[in-house]
Amino acid sequence: MSDRLTIALDAMGGDDAPGIVIDGANLALTRFPQVDFLLFGPEPALQALLERTPKLKARCRIFHTDVAIAADAKPSLAMRNGRQSSMRLAINAVQEGHAAGVVSAGNTGALMAMAKLVLRTLPGIDRPAICSFFPTLRGESVMLDLGANIDCDADNLFQFAVMGEVFARTVLGLARPTVGLLNVGAEDQKGHESLRIVSQRLRDATLPIAFHGFIEGNDIATGTVDVIVTDGFTGNVALKTAEGTVKLFSQSLRSAFKSSPLASIGYLLARPAMQKLRRRLDPRRYNGAVFLGLNGIAVKSHGGADALGFANAIGVAVDMALHGFLDTVREEFQHLYPDLGLLPPTAAVAP
Amino acid sequence: MSDRLTIALDAMGGDDAPGIVIDGANLALTRFPQVDFLLFGPEPALQALLERTPKLKARCRIFHTDVAIAADAKPSLAMRNGRQSSMRLAINAVQEGHAAGVVSAGNTGALMAMAKLVLRTLPGIDRPAICSFFPTLRGESVMLDLGANIDCDADNLFQFAVMGEVFARTVLGLARPTVGLLNVGAEDQKGHESLRIVSQRLRDATLPIAFHGFIEGNDIATGTVDVIVTDGFTGNVALKTAEGTVKLFSQSLRSAFKSSPLASIGYLLARPAMQKLRRRLDPRRYNGAVFLGLNGIAVKSHGGADALGFANAIGVAVDMALHGFLDTVREEFQHLYPDLGLLPPTAAVAP
Repeated sequence: MSDRLTIALDAMGGDDAPGIVIDGANLALTRFPQVDFLLFGPEPALQALLERTPKLKARCRIFHTDVAIAADAKPSLAMRNGRQSSMRLAINAVQEGHAAGVVSAGNTGALMAMAKLVLRTLPGIDRPAICSFFPTLRGESVMLDLGANIDCDADNLFQFAVMGEVFARTVLGLARPTVGLLNVGAEDQKGHESLRIVSQRLRDATLPIAFHGFIEGNDIATGTVDVIVTDGFTGNVALKTAEGTVKLFSQSLRSAFKSSPLASIGYLLARPAMQKLRRRLDPRRYNGAVFLGLNGIAVKSHGGADALGFANAIGVAVDMALHGFLDTVREEFQHLYPDLGLLPPTAAVAP
Repeated sequence: MSDRLTIALDAMGGDDAPGIVIDGANLALTRFPQVDFLLFGPEPALQALLERTPKLKARCRIFHTDVAIAADAKPSLAMRNGRQSSMRLAINAVQEGHAAGVVSAGNTGALMAMAKLVLRTLPGIDRPAICSFFPTLRGESVMLDLGANIDCDADNLFQFAVMGEVFARTVLGLARPTVGLLNVGAEDQKGHESLRIVSQRLRDATLPIAFHGFIEGNDIATGTVDVIVTDGFTGNVALKTAEGTVKLFSQSLRSAFKSSPLASIGYLLARPAMQKLRRRLDPRRYNGAVFLGLNGIAVKSHGGADALGFANAIGVAVDMALHGFLDTVREEFQHLYPDLGLLPPTAAVAP
């Protein structure tokens, strides 16, 4: 099968590994029947789990290791002591061309540090960024950086914009995604110096980016643009502020429904609609933070993700691989900086 | 009456001035019967409006001016050309001791620039910050800076923490408000250098501040702390992200209720509860951004506020004056920096 695809899974990352990882892979297989998996983790436990899912079992190869990266391990320590860890071996599989991408629900900092060391960054990109999806009034947007780079200069932000645009094109399937820079106002003179510089560069770019200009925090949920570009500090705060606000709203809604017998009956009648709403804003739908800018596909699932969430994270890796994300980013940077020279595509994307 | 209090109102600021200003003052008077108002704006229009509210009329003095600061005027220009503006004259009234505080729904940048020029900052404070209320799962928190200072160093953030703590004590009536620094993680080594420095200083402070440590974006709505301290860029993005998320959730909820006949009936039954929820998260309840750190009380109402919102902004100014916010901040900084020397209390707070 020409479109067959292999994904490497860190079977020891996340709160409920390896159970969730196997269940997630099983779910993902129904959506993407062309995917094979490499599982990195304790063989006996994985074998036992796979007995329950014979279809998946036929599509998996297990690579045994007992070494897990602790959720709270410092990235530097994890790098030093984790050479035989499930996370590291899964990343190695991408670098060696055995898998088109890696998915882990483990320690974010360690995953980023290891993936950067092993896969390296794409030509033209100084620092990778964490990118994820947001539900909006119009549908879905992507936002980066969500926490990989606390301090970003104009070069970093510019590169995030180019990568984010390609990501929205290849994964959201948009022909011409719009790009906005997160700021405290729409006017030209607003915000940090670096934002004004990168705004000017995005307007001048020979790259055909549909640059919207500055946006504000409220534009994230409105869906004013398809791609929101910001530094990792601001992006992380915005992401978590939105999550906290949804939680506040949901809990207030729940107590409102419980506040009177009539309201409770109202809830029962409106329940299917409420469930639809919950599904629409379900964080599991938006699970799968991608490390953009690496010379390989690496997706981080939320540590507390359930099987559905983990399956969605796998789906993001598969989408990126199927739609040639890495090659398109390489081409864009080649246009922007012809002097860079194109590295040959890694084996990871053409296994 | 010993507890009588005078508030200066910029009657030309905001989208629906002067109508909203008069209606707001009228509402505020029912809540605070001890307040008198100085109105700065076009006398004929104000007189005509006051004819409808005889009780309020008896408590107002009008100071005529036709000069308004445009909503989109650059602060520097507004300062130069706005010496006779309603905004500037209202601020002057505080500086001259005729009013205990000023409330304006006009141009934020111009109000901040003028208030800073006229009232100056309190001893020990380098830069004023914009502070406002947030609804949380636990009740209400305050957050600063919301946009006055794009770049903040450790000194600024430290001063914000001290001022914010006093604000929460005097206006929210908390005996021992907890203070948190907004960051991208709770661990000590996280975030910008300045955050680590100020965290250390807040732990060491002789001031009895209940410092919680670092918090993350989701802690804002959770209400993990009473006072959230951050730089003006991050604070502005967080505030607007939360506003946008509430809007996304409300609109999604509305369409969920409309999605089926049963859901619509459910909505009708749950309606009173929904209205309670709406009131709880009503942005008008949280209207009134305060410029903390000035040698006088200045409150900014949202430009699009209605009468209820404007009345709440007036309420914030009245609360600050009644509960001696300025004197308490002065005392705290006196403890912290005995070398500063205490400026005599301004006439504004002891008219």
